[in-house]
Amino acid sequence: MVTPLLDEDTLDLKGCEKLVNHLIGGGVHGLFILGTTGEGPSLKQSLQLELVKYVCSEVGGRIPVLVGIMDASFKEAVNIAAKAEEYGAYAVVIAPPFFYQISQDELYSFTSRLIREIFLPVYLYNNPGLTKVSFEVETVEKLIQDPQVIGIKDSSADMFYFNRLLKLTVPSEMPLLMGPEELLMEALLIGGTGGVPGGGNVFPELFVEIYELATAGKLEEARNLQKKIMKVSETFYSGSGYGSSNVINGIKCALKHLDICNDYLAQPLKKASPEKEKKIHQFLAGS
Amino acid sequence: MVTPLLDEDTLDLKGCEKLVNHLIGGGVHGLFILGTTGEGPSLKQSLQLELVKYVCSEVGGRIPVLVGIMDASFKEAVNIAAKAEEYGAYAVVIAPPFFYQISQDELYSFTSRLIREIFLPVYLYNNPGLTKVSFEVETVEKLIQDPQVIGIKDSSADMFYFNRLLKLTVPSEMPLLMGPEELLMEALLIGGTGGVPGGGNVFPELFVEIYELATAGKLEEARNLQKKIMKVSETFYSGSGYGSSNVINGIKCALKHLDICNDYLAQPLKKASPEKEKKIHQFLAGS
Amino acid sequence: MVTPLLDEDTLDLKGCEKLVNHLIGGGVHGLFILGTTGEGPSLKQSLQLELVKYVCSEVGGRIPVLVGIMDASFKEAVNIAAKAEEYGAYAVVIAPPFFYQISQDELYSFTSRLIREIFLPVYLYNNPGLTKVSFEVETVEKLIQDPQVIGIKDSSADMFYFNRLLKLTVPSEMPLLMGPEELLMEALLIGGTGGVPGGGNVFPELFVEIYELATAGKLEEARNLQKKIMKVSETFYSGSGYGSSNVINGIKCALKHLDICNDYLAQPLKKASPEKEKKIHQFLAGS
Amino acid sequence: MVTPLLDEDTLDLKGCEKLVNHLIGGGVHGLFILGTTGEGPSLKQSLQLELVKYVCSEVGGRIPVLVGIMDASFKEAVNIAAKAEEYGAYAVVIAPPFFYQISQDELYSFTSRLIREIFLPVYLYNNPGLTKVSFEVETVEKLIQDPQVIGIKDSSADMFYFNRLLKLTVPSEMPLLMGPEELLMEALLIGGTGGVPGGGNVFPELFVEIYELATAGKLEEARNLQKKIMKVSETFYSGSGYGSSNVINGIKCALKHLDICNDYLAQPLKKASPEKEKKIHQFLAGS
Repeated sequence: MVTPLLDEDTLDLKGCEKLVNHLIGGGVHGLFILGTTGEGPSLKQSLQLELVKYVCSEVGGRIPVLVGIMDASFKEAVNIAAKAEEYGAYAVVIAPPFFYQISQDELYSFTSRLIREIFLPVYLYNNPGLTKVSFEVETVEKLIQDPQVIGIKDSSADMFYFNRLLKLTVPSEMPLLMGPEELLMEALLIGGTGGVPGGGNVFPELFVEIYELATAGKLEEARNLQKKIMKVSETFYSGSGYGSSNVINGIKCALKHLDICNDYLAQPLKKASPEKEKKIHQFLAGS
Repeated sequence: MVTPLLDEDTLDLKGCEKLVNHLIGGGVHGLFILGTTGEGPSLKQSLQLELVKYVCSEVGGRIPVLVGIMDASFKEAVNIAAKAEEYGAYAVVIAPPFFYQISQDELYSFTSRLIREIFLPVYLYNNPGLTKVSFEVETVEKLIQDPQVIGIKDSSADMFYFNRLLKLTVPSEMPLLMGPEELLMEALLIGGTGGVPGGGNVFPELFVEIYELATAGKLEEARNLQKKIMKVSETFYSGSGYGSSNVINGIKCALKHLDICNDYLAQPLKKASPEKEKKIHQFLAGS
Repeated sequence: MVTPLLDEDTLDLKGCEKLVNHLIGGGVHGLFILGTTGEGPSLKQSLQLELVKYVCSEVGGRIPVLVGIMDASFKEAVNIAAKAEEYGAYAVVIAPPFFYQISQDELYSFTSRLIREIFLPVYLYNNPGLTKVSFEVETVEKLIQDPQVIGIKDSSADMFYFNRLLKLTVPSEMPLLMGPEELLMEALLIGGTGGVPGGGNVFPELFVEIYELATAGKLEEARNLQKKIMKVSETFYSGSGYGSSNVINGIKCALKHLDICNDYLAQPLKKASPEKEKKIHQFLAGS
Repeated sequence: MVTPLLDEDTLDLKGCEKLVNHLIGGGVHGLFILGTTGEGPSLKQSLQLELVKYVCSEVGGRIPVLVGIMDASFKEAVNIAAKAEEYGAYAVVIAPPFFYQISQDELYSFTSRLIREIFLPVYLYNNPGLTKVSFEVETVEKLIQDPQVIGIKDSSADMFYFNRLLKLTVPSEMPLLMGPEELLMEALLIGGTGGVPGGGNVFPELFVEIYELATAGKLEEARNLQKKIMKVSETFYSGSGYGSSNVINGIKCALKHLDICNDYLAQPLKKASPEKEKKIHQFLAGS
């Protein structure tokens, strides 16, 4: 879920409310807030906590709320997790610390110590393109010995790696979620459990449907729907900047055109350009 | 300057005091705290601020104190800078936001807006190996139009880039500081202004001396001293982990053996191994 | 197909003969020689041509023979392609020139000019991990306008890219082949045409079977077989060196144990270590 | 030295003659042909050999001729080296095989075996940006035990690495040459032996002079001249393509304007654009 913002310092609470209900109405099985698409790392901590509190309250137990814990500082990470528990989150999704370059040994120590200081269930969040370190399969294998670890979200877009993770997660039926929505169909076809598609903010039904088709093994129908997912990807996530901006500003731009929430992005990311906005507007008008 | 710590949550204040005076006694021309070597990004904000306050007070105006502002969140960065001003810092050293991948345009917007909300003079801190984005020369050129920007620290280790920066900084005599100490001598020989050598925590006189030799054009003597700097680098910064740990734990290990401060590293970095500690101990005994 | 060698300079012709017939007997739909797994770039040109001639003759039209054209020099590439035609190859598979870093514009010019000087049908071979440049989707789109281009082999292991290629190839039913065998099943499930699995040298039936299951949409059975493919990958392609050696030496080691051909690798690659050889031997004994 | 070409297949022999004498007249201490700037890897072998023969004959022993041996195939590399010896080259400069990703162990085996089959003295050529593997310091240390290895050319642009190489080469006075001309001054100031500046094709006197100033320790004058070198770099090596094209086409464009040789580049590289040609023309008119 993106984080609706009025400006650098202010949540768009009306937008949050609409977005939460748009998503639940669209049939999603859970919410993941304050992840990469949720601009977690760009928001000051007090704003992050305000969002967690608001969303948990608005959801009111209808579906599980997962909270991204993405902070370069161990102690700040612990603090956010404690608040997430207090506000009623279902689980936290923890990313590696993302400033220093670290070894697997350091990653394991950091993560296992962090889990020890957190009381909610934990998803591991692999996103090496942004955190500079990957949870290598051997490290995942050690970490999931701990029953507090209940799932994995992989945003590496590395299907070779995802295939190797399946060997760990399939026997125990541990959820293994795909990050990039373009790879959701195939992740499900080969045995993955679900996904965390950014485009689901705009079109929750689309991704619920691909989930249902792929898990039911309806190959032809799934491939047809996949064409639409690729079309959304091309239209919404292209642009002149880097990936981070382009993905999030495409989603927020569409949500604004759907009158769901504001399209402000926290520093350092930027709104969609007028040209991109026009393309998205046309897409929405035609879809 | 490293940040002396007793544990994850507690400054080693006695160590801070000793270290500050060890450095001033060694003739350094300024202090840079809360940079990469200072573990700034790993420390919770309240601890960062405690360090700024303590160091500024202990230094008492004897030399300038520069404070690293390294936070992925714009608003948190502004907050730390405001406190640094209040506590009497001379300048802040600002790094790019380091979670998302951003374009030069986004980097320029973020940085120029941040400068507008800060009242202290500013150094730009280039460290693309860790922040994933470089201040490209054209971006630096635009940013230094602002008279609030008074210097640059470059830790890219890319001398081709450093040569291009010189063209911008030499005419206006803007300080251009070299990060990695192994490249300090050559940076000075080709026209750089100074350096921020991590090894200066342990051997401040050594780096003051190479500064004096190189700026005086004493090539033979400088090259001889450079051999010792390379020897320190080999002995102190090697190890089994990644660079980040290996550099900082080598420095802290030596400072402990010199009875200056504790050798605790904040998560996710790790102390020197016993083998490395032995090597450093032998080096210090023999030097 | 690997290239059976007695030493740096000599084909293992007996091995070639056995291997060709092992593969055809295993039901493969075509042979790709002198690709990455075929050590094309390591072999002197006269040896490459000797192999093409021998294999085309031995196959005798039973299945199509595709010949990798991998040379940093345009004129040498043209020469190899001309000989491949003369010896009866079905098509050539052309890789980008792999020494210089080149732009898409340069890649397009090189490739389209090369195609003009070649008379056989052409597959594009994308392998950016080794050639340092990727055939970007826009470049592929332009190149396949030429009817001489009849297919694509993608060894990028980037499924996001593969999904985007499908949009180009599916409407015209152009073959789109997956390189890494670990991704073959999913490539087929989402609409890919086939694969060029290195492990097919050893177990041709295994890959023919996954092809048949996946194209028939038999998800459960395909996933079960995929477990064996992942097991082969782990056992055969791990090791102490880099990927290139580890993949090829695992295959050649197994072929030697199956008494099909010699296990010599051309410089700079190296035979499997004794430990790896033991693992592979045990796997073959148990399988 | 660039390789003057009339087209893909034909040396510009008149241009070769003029260029050789332009360089010797400019005071250079040796010639390096068929390196990266010499487009060695793009030329068919027979053309490479024709160039070696022609240049060795034209130079006639006035200065040493070093021949780049850059071929992905071991046997082809041996063959070129044997011819270079026959034609009177002084030494060969050997690059790693550049297609596969290889380990240091594989690099060491390849290189030491290659040296054994070559009879000329050898320079090691480090250029990891193009060959994907670096001669790590420990590997260099082993290789230079062999007295046949008489020097090193480093084009990594990594001054940290260069500083570490100095420790190996300074005690034995082994030549250590800098590749990128922008770093030549500082390489000499810290103890390097010389350089292989591409811009020396156009302005041999400029680089001979920076060599003399830097080795004499005339810091101020060297820094002043360095400004001109940086200006050449900016004007000649910028462009719309990748580095490889941009450097070589800038040099060939200038040589054409100086009426020294033709500006054709072998596939896959491209001539300077008309805009770039204009800039270079203006620079030459004004210099």
